[in-house]
Amino acid sequence: MVPPADGVPEAVPDRPEQATGEISMLPPEEAEKVVADIRAIAESRGDDTEIVDMTPLELQQTGRARRSTMLPPMPNVSAEMPAVSAPPDDDALSVEDLRDAWPLLDLEERSDGLHVLDREDAEEFFVSLTAGDQAALLLHFRPGQRRQWMRMLEPDDVADVIQEVDKPGDPEKKATLLALLDTPTRKEVTALLTYAEDEAGGLMSTRYARLRLHMTADEAVSYLRRQARDKIETIYYAYVLDGDQRLLGVVSFRDLFAADPKKTVAEVMETDVIRVTDEMDQETVSRVFAEHDLTVVPVVDRDGRMKGIVTVDDIVDVVQEEATEDAQKFGGMAALEVPYLQSSRREMIKKRVGWLVLLLAGSMLTATALESFQGQIDTVPLLALFLPMIVSTGGNSGSQASTLVIRAMALGEIRAADWWLIMRRELLTGLALGGVLGVMALGRVALWGTWGRYGDHYVLVALVAGCSVLGCVLCGTLAGAMLPFVLRKVGADPASASAPFVATLVDVSGILIYFGIANLLLTGVLL
Amino acid sequence: MVPPADGVPEAVPDRPEQATGEISMLPPEEAEKVVADIRAIAESRGDDTEIVDMTPLELQQTGRARRSTMLPPMPNVSAEMPAVSAPPDDDALSVEDLRDAWPLLDLEERSDGLHVLDREDAEEFFVSLTAGDQAALLLHFRPGQRRQWMRMLEPDDVADVIQEVDKPGDPEKKATLLALLDTPTRKEVTALLTYAEDEAGGLMSTRYARLRLHMTADEAVSYLRRQARDKIETIYYAYVLDGDQRLLGVVSFRDLFAADPKKTVAEVMETDVIRVTDEMDQETVSRVFAEHDLTVVPVVDRDGRMKGIVTVDDIVDVVQEEATEDAQKFGGMAALEVPYLQSSRREMIKKRVGWLVLLLAGSMLTATALESFQGQIDTVPLLALFLPMIVSTGGNSGSQASTLVIRAMALGEIRAADWWLIMRRELLTGLALGGVLGVMALGRVALWGTWGRYGDHYVLVALVAGCSVLGCVLCGTLAGAMLPFVLRKVGADPASASAPFVATLVDVSGILIYFGIANLLLTGVLL
Repeated sequence: MVPPADGVPEAVPDRPEQATGEISMLPPEEAEKVVADIRAIAESRGDDTEIVDMTPLELQQTGRARRSTMLPPMPNVSAEMPAVSAPPDDDALSVEDLRDAWPLLDLEERSDGLHVLDREDAEEFFVSLTAGDQAALLLHFRPGQRRQWMRMLEPDDVADVIQEVDKPGDPEKKATLLALLDTPTRKEVTALLTYAEDEAGGLMSTRYARLRLHMTADEAVSYLRRQARDKIETIYYAYVLDGDQRLLGVVSFRDLFAADPKKTVAEVMETDVIRVTDEMDQETVSRVFAEHDLTVVPVVDRDGRMKGIVTVDDIVDVVQEEATEDAQKFGGMAALEVPYLQSSRREMIKKRVGWLVLLLAGSMLTATALESFQGQIDTVPLLALFLPMIVSTGGNSGSQASTLVIRAMALGEIRAADWWLIMRRELLTGLALGGVLGVMALGRVALWGTWGRYGDHYVLVALVAGCSVLGCVLCGTLAGAMLPFVLRKVGADPASASAPFVATLVDVSGILIYFGIANLLLTGVLL
Repeated sequence: MVPPADGVPEAVPDRPEQATGEISMLPPEEAEKVVADIRAIAESRGDDTEIVDMTPLELQQTGRARRSTMLPPMPNVSAEMPAVSAPPDDDALSVEDLRDAWPLLDLEERSDGLHVLDREDAEEFFVSLTAGDQAALLLHFRPGQRRQWMRMLEPDDVADVIQEVDKPGDPEKKATLLALLDTPTRKEVTALLTYAEDEAGGLMSTRYARLRLHMTADEAVSYLRRQARDKIETIYYAYVLDGDQRLLGVVSFRDLFAADPKKTVAEVMETDVIRVTDEMDQETVSRVFAEHDLTVVPVVDRDGRMKGIVTVDDIVDVVQEEATEDAQKFGGMAALEVPYLQSSRREMIKKRVGWLVLLLAGSMLTATALESFQGQIDTVPLLALFLPMIVSTGGNSGSQASTLVIRAMALGEIRAADWWLIMRRELLTGLALGGVLGVMALGRVALWGTWGRYGDHYVLVALVAGCSVLGCVLCGTLAGAMLPFVLRKVGADPASASAPFVATLVDVSGILIYFGIANLLLTGVLL
């Protein structure tokens, strides 16, 4: 692992903004067509009813129902305002139109859309895209333009983009993109690339504010004022390091600012610093943020040397990403990694077919199990009627239990050592749920039985159904609750204890339970 | 709806910190016992292997493997440090011990634990608890102590706590807690209580920094310096309002600080402000944060009047909460609302039994459907063998499709108007998946058939199984993908298109497909 060179944040040269306007360069007629096309797509998708964030007043003033975030000119205050932003031009493409249409656009249309926006909007929009989208666009742009777009990104975002294109056996794209950076940035990015995307080092920014121990509060404020003009991530938390880059303390700008100007940084700083290590998993980092209500956390290496900071806005993305991955795994597939509409059909099938094949192979065991009970089915064909109802109830209760345990594990509420506690809880819950459902199933069969549908011994058959539902629910609940612990123990992701996985497990055991109870209660009567 | 009084943030009087030490008041022998008990529980749960955030160096220095976030004294720098924090006292209860044991402690133990911590740690820990835990503790504390704890909380947190105890028919607890507040804070809290917990107004803080349009940057910085000493949420973004409290613009402290001191706020501020409305759903607010990479967003009412701000750290909780609710719904139960270990067994059963009963009622239709095919089963009992395998494969593919659509909807990637696009995609995907799985099922039956297990016409039976799997997978995929749209259309939560719900739907239709195909292919041969 290559640690970033000491003092890197200070060493970064100013990057002139180069407002050459080179970006908006589509010829007018072509631009008009692009705008019309993109707007048509945006409008065909409509407003998502839940995200109309405009007030009625604003809607009225802009004259059309679109999600604009522009502040409309306010008639009663405009006299006071020296710098009113221009009213939205109805012929121009708005950022919101482009955002609405984005998932349905191809690479060419996306690139055109960006080139039609004015420079500032384009920059803001480009920076807000996912690393995958940014990577695809950067490689799509003409070589002469790439550098300009690349330089809009912070080193940690550049590292994410490069990780997107860095596939084994194809080092060329990575080299193409790295060549666009100036030397100090390239060094920074290369250091960041040694971390996996999903660990703290892969999330962090190396551009944090630093202070020295013996500065006065007043000097520190001036020093931060100078740093505020540079491209550092935040000036609102500054870190105090010793000569070995070890973290001594943290000062919030606010405290520094409110403090007696004569006090030293050492007196104002907090030494009891919550920190994470550079190799910590991002899910754990997000838990540290949640537990301590942090907005920023310093990242240190194994020797306690400061490496960078992670800010809470990145954590929102992490939390969404992890929740999406877990949801997809729980739905019985491999995590998709890209947004639904942007994954190719090929990729989509690849991610889905694996688990389905495994699950089908598992459920083939039901056929094998049923074969061994073929005799009973032949004698009492009635038994086949209730089979799907009984086993799927077991699957449903298992799905509940596993979703609860998986989610609680993801949130850190349940630990590996708590399995015994969970087992007892779910045993009792399973009994209660199984009791209710068993009585219900018994009632259904008995009721139809009184109408003469199930022969003379319908009461016994109803009893078999009721007891089997109880048994399947109990078995499903326990299997669902314990499977995540088992998976975790063997190093797999607990979220793979998916609803379909649990259901398939319970299908097989449900058949054994059902015919076992049937044998017990019906032998000598119907069997 | 009662709007908060204008100018409330400024009107809040200083609250003296009252460091009376009254909080740590357990007698020493009792405290010792409490510490021992809590530590035993914390240790029994062990370290969660994934959240050891300590570096090896730190582990070595503190001498035991616990998740400490304390900065250990560093021998090689201590000479430089005027204010080294005391080394952790091995007899004291650490915040981390208490946090580890927390989920397993009862109310009495929790209260004792808090009273054993030193004041600063106790305050920090109390503030980081969930509103539900805070509410339970506040009501548990002796009346004389409540006020002190209550005053640690910001008005928006107080509002959350009161919402926790505010149950219809029991207004007493709400009144008890409200009475603990001073008059201006009570007014603020009452205004916040008019909002639902899950809308922007319920998330926001009313204590934001304000600036006037004509101040110079220099004056503004001094003005914020004064505000930094008050209890405002953040000084890092300040809002510029007109006389009607309408939002004119926003200034980041950093820009203000870096600007020419002679410039006015009007010149430095950004007028193109992304804002949310006070009644916007919290899920939508979180999407606005994600789309625009925000750290704070202003909340305005229908008339564009500024009401408060929402900060990104609250959004992390929202995102986790929404993901948990969706996961639980998708697992086939009502959202639990409290952490798994903290819900009572009664509550747990209530949240789970509803859907199970509905699903069992639904799956009873499988028995009805099978009854109408009783004749076929009697004639060819072989058909019953493959029934669970075929219908559960349909359920599995449906679970995949619905998880993808639900999650993409939650992230705002898919909108209501996109249903047709999704339908086409899933139709093609379903055909591909169904093809693979159908061939697999056909192979299984044919192979066993060649071993003479399924009679002479095993090839036809294999064909029936293969075609039925294809049909069920296609049907499951489409049902899973479309059900979230249907639920959303009728105003229900798309996440209720749970794996068990889809599976039950597909169970019934799967039976019709299976016996339909059997009738078609086997009539005249076996039937």
